[in-house]
Amino acid sequence: MHPAAVLPTPRRSGTTTAAVITLDGGTTRPRRDRLAVEEPLEIRVAGPGEPFASVAVTMRTPGHDLELAAGLLAAEGLVGDGIAQARACSDDPNVVQVGLHAPLRRDRLRRRIEISSSCGLCGHTSIDELGQRCDPLPPGPTITPELLTTLPDRLRDHQRLFASTGGLHAAAGFAADGTLLALREDVGRHNALDKLLGRLVLDPRLPRPEIVLLSGRASFELVQKAAVAGIPIVAAVSAPSSLAVDAARALGVTLVGFLRGERANVYAHPQRLGLGPEAGR
Amino acid sequence: MHPAAVLPTPRRSGTTTAAVITLDGGTTRPRRDRLAVEEPLEIRVAGPGEPFASVAVTMRTPGHDLELAAGLLAAEGLVGDGIAQARACSDDPNVVQVGLHAPLRRDRLRRRIEISSSCGLCGHTSIDELGQRCDPLPPGPTITPELLTTLPDRLRDHQRLFASTGGLHAAAGFAADGTLLALREDVGRHNALDKLLGRLVLDPRLPRPEIVLLSGRASFELVQKAAVAGIPIVAAVSAPSSLAVDAARALGVTLVGFLRGERANVYAHPQRLGLGPEAGR
Repeated sequence: MHPAAVLPTPRRSGTTTAAVITLDGGTTRPRRDRLAVEEPLEIRVAGPGEPFASVAVTMRTPGHDLELAAGLLAAEGLVGDGIAQARACSDDPNVVQVGLHAPLRRDRLRRRIEISSSCGLCGHTSIDELGQRCDPLPPGPTITPELLTTLPDRLRDHQRLFASTGGLHAAAGFAADGTLLALREDVGRHNALDKLLGRLVLDPRLPRPEIVLLSGRASFELVQKAAVAGIPIVAAVSAPSSLAVDAARALGVTLVGFLRGERANVYAHPQRLGLGPEAGR
Repeated sequence: MHPAAVLPTPRRSGTTTAAVITLDGGTTRPRRDRLAVEEPLEIRVAGPGEPFASVAVTMRTPGHDLELAAGLLAAEGLVGDGIAQARACSDDPNVVQVGLHAPLRRDRLRRRIEISSSCGLCGHTSIDELGQRCDPLPPGPTITPELLTTLPDRLRDHQRLFASTGGLHAAAGFAADGTLLALREDVGRHNALDKLLGRLVLDPRLPRPEIVLLSGRASFELVQKAAVAGIPIVAAVSAPSSLAVDAARALGVTLVGFLRGERANVYAHPQRLGLGPEAGR
């Protein structure tokens, strides 16, 4: 088998920077933080003489996009006879086109009307759409940085399944005074948050959390879900992605990352922590 | 708004156990390890008088399934008028049915022929399907536990983007002698592995790795992707899920988890580490 014709793609950076306020004990310091870029990639595929069909959209870090497309298609058994050519769309760096040596095995695509939980809403267009679907969150409440830094210990104290397996994500909902309202665990980050938010949907009499704490990283989709549910403060133990920060700023969500010990980074709407507007712009 | 009618579902455990061999420096010890359960959940939705439509399949940890379904649907804007009833299927605990007060907003479902990258192939049926699509991997190669424990440091040394952002997953391919062949990073775990495997697809002259190292946890889908690509040893820095272990055993993949310092757990096919068959059954 010969190597595929892989046309050169513009080199794009996998990281970007954002203004952030770093909390450390009682001190605050505005600075710039480096973030992993998160953007949607659409994969279009065609066999010889066929029109291109869009078969997948995935949120990814730009770079090695043709490899991502080829690997994803191969894992699904769609490139048995190999890839003839792979190239980025000339007018949209978030679209790649893959030409196969044989007709596309459409029987291996899953035909279902589906919520694309891997993709969420995609990119900046979707942040605009989101803005139409949910108004930016109103101001308040205000919590103290000291309260914020107590939350990870409370999360860990109640993470029953993680304690026994070391292999689960958690999402916890807290009231503005730090009361733990509910905690859910799952192998999937999105699922843990969906379970937490689903509780509110199933019983609207339950108090809505003002803060959600995520045991891992904060992606675009997790911020989006919290915003749609009307939760104004999202804190994560690990890093946010670039698109998570963009979404939080657009939707009026206070976004905190790297919440560990007495330290934290505030990426959007710091006013709910009693801080000035140095971040969130 | 009134709470939805939520019918009781059978209580299911979010964890299970598996036989494992723990390596620690020069010693090996067979024992049982507790794993997070990973199984597919199918979500079916209907408005009043409508037939149920399958709108999503997600890999999840069993428990709070109705909340998961409600939260996922709400985040997509599908339950504006609320949920009338949510229940598990009486004959399949991995299917839930959600009845809405208003007709299903089909315009908010994404109609696309799509590779379901959130789901992969689902559950035990899919392990059988996989067995038909790819023969279990042949024996070999054999590597030493000492070589294995050197790999995380090599991964970290080359994780350029993670070093600057703290927010990226990585997948690295190694030859049987420990030579690093390629490393890819991404905000998504699946994407990092897809990029690595896609390199092989685009240029079949490149040597195929015998070992793939994942910077995070090992899910079913990641093991499946490695198996389809013919890579016999999968090692992860964090925990595997129950279905990842099942898939590795069925497909002839050596699966290592919690690879940290001089320690590691071997969950499947330990013979490639020169160990007996105490695990992998």
